[in-house]
Amino acid sequence: MDRLTIIKVGGKVVEDPSALNAMLDQFVRISGYKILVHGGGNTASEIAGKLGIETQMVDGRRITSQSMLDVVTMVYGGLVNKKIVAQLQARGCNAIGLSGADLNLIHARKRPVKEIDFGFVGDVDDVNSRELRFLLNENVVPVVAPLTHDGKGQLLNTNADTIAAELAGELANHYSVYLFFCFDKKGVLMNPEDEGSMLHELSAQEFGQYQNEKVISSGMIPKLENGFKAKRRGVKEVLITNTENMMTGRGTRLV
Amino acid sequence: MDRLTIIKVGGKVVEDPSALNAMLDQFVRISGYKILVHGGGNTASEIAGKLGIETQMVDGRRITSQSMLDVVTMVYGGLVNKKIVAQLQARGCNAIGLSGADLNLIHARKRPVKEIDFGFVGDVDDVNSRELRFLLNENVVPVVAPLTHDGKGQLLNTNADTIAAELAGELANHYSVYLFFCFDKKGVLMNPEDEGSMLHELSAQEFGQYQNEKVISSGMIPKLENGFKAKRRGVKEVLITNTENMMTGRGTRLV
Repeated sequence: MDRLTIIKVGGKVVEDPSALNAMLDQFVRISGYKILVHGGGNTASEIAGKLGIETQMVDGRRITSQSMLDVVTMVYGGLVNKKIVAQLQARGCNAIGLSGADLNLIHARKRPVKEIDFGFVGDVDDVNSRELRFLLNENVVPVVAPLTHDGKGQLLNTNADTIAAELAGELANHYSVYLFFCFDKKGVLMNPEDEGSMLHELSAQEFGQYQNEKVISSGMIPKLENGFKAKRRGVKEVLITNTENMMTGRGTRLV
Repeated sequence: MDRLTIIKVGGKVVEDPSALNAMLDQFVRISGYKILVHGGGNTASEIAGKLGIETQMVDGRRITSQSMLDVVTMVYGGLVNKKIVAQLQARGCNAIGLSGADLNLIHARKRPVKEIDFGFVGDVDDVNSRELRFLLNENVVPVVAPLTHDGKGQLLNTNADTIAAELAGELANHYSVYLFFCFDKKGVLMNPEDEGSMLHELSAQEFGQYQNEKVISSGMIPKLENGFKAKRRGVKEVLITNTENMMTGRGTRLV
């Protein structure tokens, strides 16, 4: 099967023009098929603040009211996504910006209300990769914003790590998929203050153990859960890394 | 050649949920290949206002500062575009949202500063329809936001009537193109207060004459100039109409 690299970059890279430029310079050098999935970062909260919309987070997840959904649709689907696309085109990379509604790419359902009402947050049901594969085959490079839809006209806000892992899991049926989660650390650290404590490999069993011992920070847990889920679905390699190292293969490899 | 219908809808339709729904109900019934081009309307000005960014218009054209460009990128490329895509998907229409940067679709240059500095406004250089035709062939329905790019990483704000006419002109090389400009009147009116004064046909010669006599309102002039330019490039039919009549062929036909 052909190689497909899926890079997920977080909000901190996207917000900082020089970090974004450096990342895109690396990204365009990746050979073979590739997809970029981006988060939104604090821009959404900043713009929401200026519009008088309060940002509420629970466990690092955004509570998405109707007005906050409009903000993330604007910021993730418009501002961030189109800027990245224009920057990739400037580098000769034929990018296309997509949300989960475009091409009916990612179908989700509104998260059921339990203890917390997350509002318009979507849990992914399925990925429809048919047209996406057509685009890849035409050497088009999809740039995916963390938005999904319910098929009934409702857009939903979905975590970008989840989007990347779900795309990777589905596309593993068609490609040899390499999934890189890029964030602001070199990899998974045993001690968040010490980059020397990075794990080179992490197994699902160790992950369970470290979770029980509470040595893995809560922010890393969804990323790792998504990564292990992708591995189980046949993704060839899942690496937790940063944008400086994404080309070298350094970071924490899930095994 | 196969028939391709390009519908341009203005901001007033896009802003009013019931008008938008009615338009989309009509749009999905159009047989053959189709493209929807949308304006942005006052939402951009409203959001800019809340963000403390002043809206400046000259002859109905928006002066686009860097911060206003961010707003139109958010509103046109994100909010309006993705909502329409999600609504079309709900109607079983496999839509994809595009700006002129996506797929390198519409290349433009920043308008030169003469008497007025329009800021980040783009005059279209060329349309690259290769991947667009590929999508149409897959029965995908493009929804195009009025944004272009300069190929050097800069997004630009471009009038939606111009986008529709430029797409129509280029695609007339490949399809039998029907271009409908939908706005809030039934067609071109000799007396803006009287819908009975609608012209059923308008020739380029008559248009020149009416312009000299100043009986055509200034807002209509760029729409008609774009329409006649598209006709000259081989577009089969150009109709100025409203969304209620777009399926019936009523309105002002350019001849």
